[in-house]
Amino acid sequence: MTTPRNFTPSCPFPIQDYPQVLLAHGGGGKLMHQLIGKLFLPVFRNPMLESQHDASVFDIAGQRLAFTTDSYVVRPLFFPGGDLGSLAVHGTVNDLAMAGARPLYLSAGFIIEEGLPMETLWKIASSMQQAAQNAGVQIITGDTKVVDKGKGDGLFINTAGIGILEHSLKIAPQSVQPGDAILVNGDVGRHGMAIMAVREGLSFESAIESDSAPLAEAVLQLLRTGVEIHC
Amino acid sequence: MTTPRNFTPSCPFPIQDYPQVLLAHGGGGKLMHQLIGKLFLPVFRNPMLESQHDASVFDIAGQRLAFTTDSYVVRPLFFPGGDLGSLAVHGTVNDLAMAGARPLYLSAGFIIEEGLPMETLWKIASSMQQAAQNAGVQIITGDTKVVDKGKGDGLFINTAGIGILEHSLKIAPQSVQPGDAILVNGDVGRHGMAIMAVREGLSFESAIESDSAPLAEAVLQLLRTGVEIHC
Repeated sequence: MTTPRNFTPSCPFPIQDYPQVLLAHGGGGKLMHQLIGKLFLPVFRNPMLESQHDASVFDIAGQRLAFTTDSYVVRPLFFPGGDLGSLAVHGTVNDLAMAGARPLYLSAGFIIEEGLPMETLWKIASSMQQAAQNAGVQIITGDTKVVDKGKGDGLFINTAGIGILEHSLKIAPQSVQPGDAILVNGDVGRHGMAIMAVREGLSFESAIESDSAPLAEAVLQLLRTGVEIHC
Repeated sequence: MTTPRNFTPSCPFPIQDYPQVLLAHGGGGKLMHQLIGKLFLPVFRNPMLESQHDASVFDIAGQRLAFTTDSYVVRPLFFPGGDLGSLAVHGTVNDLAMAGARPLYLSAGFIIEEGLPMETLWKIASSMQQAAQNAGVQIITGDTKVVDKGKGDGLFINTAGIGILEHSLKIAPQSVQPGDAILVNGDVGRHGMAIMAVREGLSFESAIESDSAPLAEAVLQLLRTGVEIHC
């Protein structure tokens, strides 16, 4: 396999091994970490991004803030125990929480495929708002794009979130040590199984439900009670 | 046409007239304003969103900040005078500038269609970084999703941006008055024509180039020189 024409020789990503983006590059495993570590991080090089935390933390006027983003592309849009709208709020709120921040504000970017039932959009947006209210955040800015039929998949939602750090702890994935307690707030594999069961039409003796929920308050309570953070 | 089943009767959007989302609902015209005014604003109801400004302005610890988001879905990914990457930075930086903010930080959410050439992703990301450096902003948080082939369109990018207001002016679209000067920073229609020419294979006697550029510094200079704002 030859190196593509015009290829910048300084790219540390092994383009010759992966000339095209694969599904696995977004799957959260080894290939995704290679894509982030050898393409995005070298390109956007800055210490905040390199922290590889769920949210980046920065300082404005003596106040620490957290900033994060996620796009939500889960199919089907409505799954047992949740939907794309509530997920798009909970996921981003929880990324802020993982940085020890109290979530304040969200943005919402909708990429809609032409032909999406308007009622579906209304239901998803209403679910987002319900989730935002439950989580104590406001959706204060947004964007709407519509792409040609066949060039999208019903609806993608991106949310970015801003939170405030009301303590001086330094919470970082790099601080995790052998012996630390790991809190798992749901059955491992449940969400994936629930989604797969709907997609593939599988049924089980007992129905598998997924869920999503805002975890910021729980995390902030942990911090308030003085849980030990290695920092 | 009957009202869809399960349709919440309080929805102020005329679903019976538009049961499905049309391309024009993202086109920036009348239908898009109806979608925003009768669906998104009633659902997400809050004063900051209702300002309908390019960016929302809020206060943290006595400091005013601006927050905005945009998804970029322009085809082709590379067009005469620019590309999706630089556009995704300039567009969001400029939305912050329109609220009178100095842009500081961006998020970047990539929705990649399986099969996108890795070199294209590298070029677009490199162009984003170049544009960010020129505009004086840092891309500090990001997300990568890969969707099935045929369920996307090569690459969509969402950026959200945070800026700081270093003055006490209240800049709002509602303040525009008859007699105000309007600064047009390029030929009206040039971008649309450049994109259309590439898409449709049109050629003209003189080539039509589009461009995109960060305008924050120009806007901030206007403010520093004391341009009159009705506020």
